Amino acid sequence: MRIDSVDLFYVAMPTILDIGDGSQDALLVRVQADGFVGWGECEASPLTSIASLIAPMSHSACKPVGANLLGATITDPADIRALGERVRWDSFDLLQAAHTWSGIDIALWDLLGKQREVPVHELLGPEPAQPKLPYASVLFGQDPEQTLSIAKEAAASGFAAVKFGWSDFGRGTVAEDIEQLAAAREGIGEDVEFMVDAAMAWGDDAVSASKRMKSLHDFRVLFLEEPFVPGATRAYRELALSKGRVGIAAGEGSSSYEAAISMIDDAGVDYVQVDAGRVGGITEAFRVASYAARAGVSYINHTFTTHLALSASLQPFAFDANSGWCEYPLMPSSLAQALTIDGVPVGADGRVRIPEAPGLGVTISEEAIRSHLVDVEISVDGTRLFSSPRL
Amino acid sequence: MRIDSVDLFYVAMPTILDIGDGSQDALLVRVQADGFVGWGECEASPLTSIASLIAPMSHSACKPVGANLLGATITDPADIRALGERVRWDSFDLLQAAHTWSGIDIALWDLLGKQREVPVHELLGPEPAQPKLPYASVLFGQDPEQTLSIAKEAAASGFAAVKFGWSDFGRGTVAEDIEQLAAAREGIGEDVEFMVDAAMAWGDDAVSASKRMKSLHDFRVLFLEEPFVPGATRAYRELALSKGRVGIAAGEGSSSYEAAISMIDDAGVDYVQVDAGRVGGITEAFRVASYAARAGVSYINHTFTTHLALSASLQPFAFDANSGWCEYPLMPSSLAQALTIDGVPVGADGRVRIPEAPGLGVTISEEAIRSHLVDVEISVDGTRLFSSPRL
Repeated sequence: MRIDSVDLFYVAMPTILDIGDGSQDALLVRVQADGFVGWGECEASPLTSIASLIAPMSHSACKPVGANLLGATITDPADIRALGERVRWDSFDLLQAAHTWSGIDIALWDLLGKQREVPVHELLGPEPAQPKLPYASVLFGQDPEQTLSIAKEAAASGFAAVKFGWSDFGRGTVAEDIEQLAAAREGIGEDVEFMVDAAMAWGDDAVSASKRMKSLHDFRVLFLEEPFVPGATRAYRELALSKGRVGIAAGEGSSSYEAAISMIDDAGVDYVQVDAGRVGGITEAFRVASYAARAGVSYINHTFTTHLALSASLQPFAFDANSGWCEYPLMPSSLAQALTIDGVPVGADGRVRIPEAPGLGVTISEEAIRSHLVDVEISVDGTRLFSSPRL
Repeated sequence: MRIDSVDLFYVAMPTILDIGDGSQDALLVRVQADGFVGWGECEASPLTSIASLIAPMSHSACKPVGANLLGATITDPADIRALGERVRWDSFDLLQAAHTWSGIDIALWDLLGKQREVPVHELLGPEPAQPKLPYASVLFGQDPEQTLSIAKEAAASGFAAVKFGWSDFGRGTVAEDIEQLAAAREGIGEDVEFMVDAAMAWGDDAVSASKRMKSLHDFRVLFLEEPFVPGATRAYRELALSKGRVGIAAGEGSSSYEAAISMIDDAGVDYVQVDAGRVGGITEAFRVASYAARAGVSYINHTFTTHLALSASLQPFAFDANSGWCEYPLMPSSLAQALTIDGVPVGADGRVRIPEAPGLGVTISEEAIRSHLVDVEISVDGTRLFSSPRL
């Protein structure tokens, strides 16, 4: 197949709230080639990624992401990898390129799967896909009473694990954190797995983080997620000395294979969390998952938007029976829900199965795109370089 | 001072060539506050960085870089740091933000220096600035004969060191590389320091790189720059086993303090090369320089554009007598030359002195901006979010 078009669709809720919900807008990628259509999604700041697709060249290692896409031939997975390598070198000094390319890479895998009439994971390897156990992601309450009630509700929904995060956890006193942990564990009961997302609360301060490790251990927290900012490898190593049986999870901020691998090799995490929409698409996420499997580190997807992104994020570790957990966007925005017609449901057994329909196995609602489309126009020296495409 | 305006000026040569010269365009930042004006510069892809300044919010951790700048108070260096921290957290998921903020941070240091009538390095600390020894950056020739002639010419220009780079070095056979190294060493003579920039030729393949180390050692190469892609820490560690007396230099691709520090802690480089226009401005570059000094690692600026960027890039390691080398853009484009009126010259003693005039000590040519200004218009849902400002 030859790539005929690469279109970016910026969609958004009518009002974007100043809250952590990352599903309030989306940048969808449609690739068309020889009558086939593939869809992908880029993580975050749609306008910036659109600009990176069409920005005038700065020099030979700073070309726009779209410089060499049209007319490129995609016959098998190696072609997607080769095109990604080319974009990487040609856009090396364009920081945003990794996020933009990620969505295009995902669309190319969807495209190739549809042309061959196989699910994407079959393009990655012959092993059967393993079902994943989703955890519910919720926020700590404003006080322990509220956390208790949130925890009870989450446990009642039938999830095998609940991850608590954000709010003020880690930013106040150790005693306050212990009260929150106690309330959460009490609410979910003894049989539900318990994870905590610190949302980078301690920057690169391993001492502050380590003060919480005994309590996390006592409340049998499976893993502590993102105690530090991305790349703070020294702090991660220092924390490892006091983590006891609590696993450390991180990596969602990785925008390259190397950055994710460094979280395994240099930060020593027990769970590497990868957003396929940031790290370089399914291609690079699969390389990370393969490396993690060899290193004995569990892989978990990071996903907080549509089921298109969810399906893409599950493919890279489809085979890995030792990476059994998956992040599952429980309550995405009405936009994210409307964008896909068939999604990736949680089965009656509480597990998530990777779609077996061709490509990513997710059908995009063009009607939802039309009704949420953001109209963008970018001109440089009087020439229109981008106008939002129509469907 | 309260920030009254933050303006981005995208300037470019009439034609951008598909060559490595990174000075063919520039994104200048002008910050105005209480009648004072500061100038900064962002690295690469001006249109993408402009979009990141004004992009609609995606969620609470993905705001545009410009979200909280206007009206912010800048009284001393701590205010610049605090504003940078705020931008970092508010734009965490906006990958391009680090490059955009870098130029704004640089402009704020220039502004504060001008208001206080002191050079920026005096705002960083009381120690006297040390002159730096520039090296000439040239390219290997297409064959050893051409390299010999380039090397003779470079040595005749009086530089104490010459760095050879790019071209096909490292991408052919070891024998070909040895011929190039021999020609370069012969051309510069025995008394001139010799560096080699491998321009990421070996990806993350330490074996291929290590095959060149004995020759680099034999030709007394001071350091080998960027054998691998940014963040390939494992390959750097493996290469260290065979490097002999050849130093390893890298870090220009770092777009955060943590990424640069990881090149010291995890990759084990001997020289950390930092681009202040990428890493988070003078603030973060100074943190890296301070860390490097404590770790016994030499700091070198990475600069390939204007003398405004050069002055900004020299401030962070102004005091460090153990970091004596500086990268000096020898032949930037006519645009880059025209953008500053007074620059950072090489003195009669062959050394570069950091300007002692207030701020960055560099005067911007508004005429050069006007005559090279690229006209950008960005509209979202019918609202004009950016029009190139006029001077």
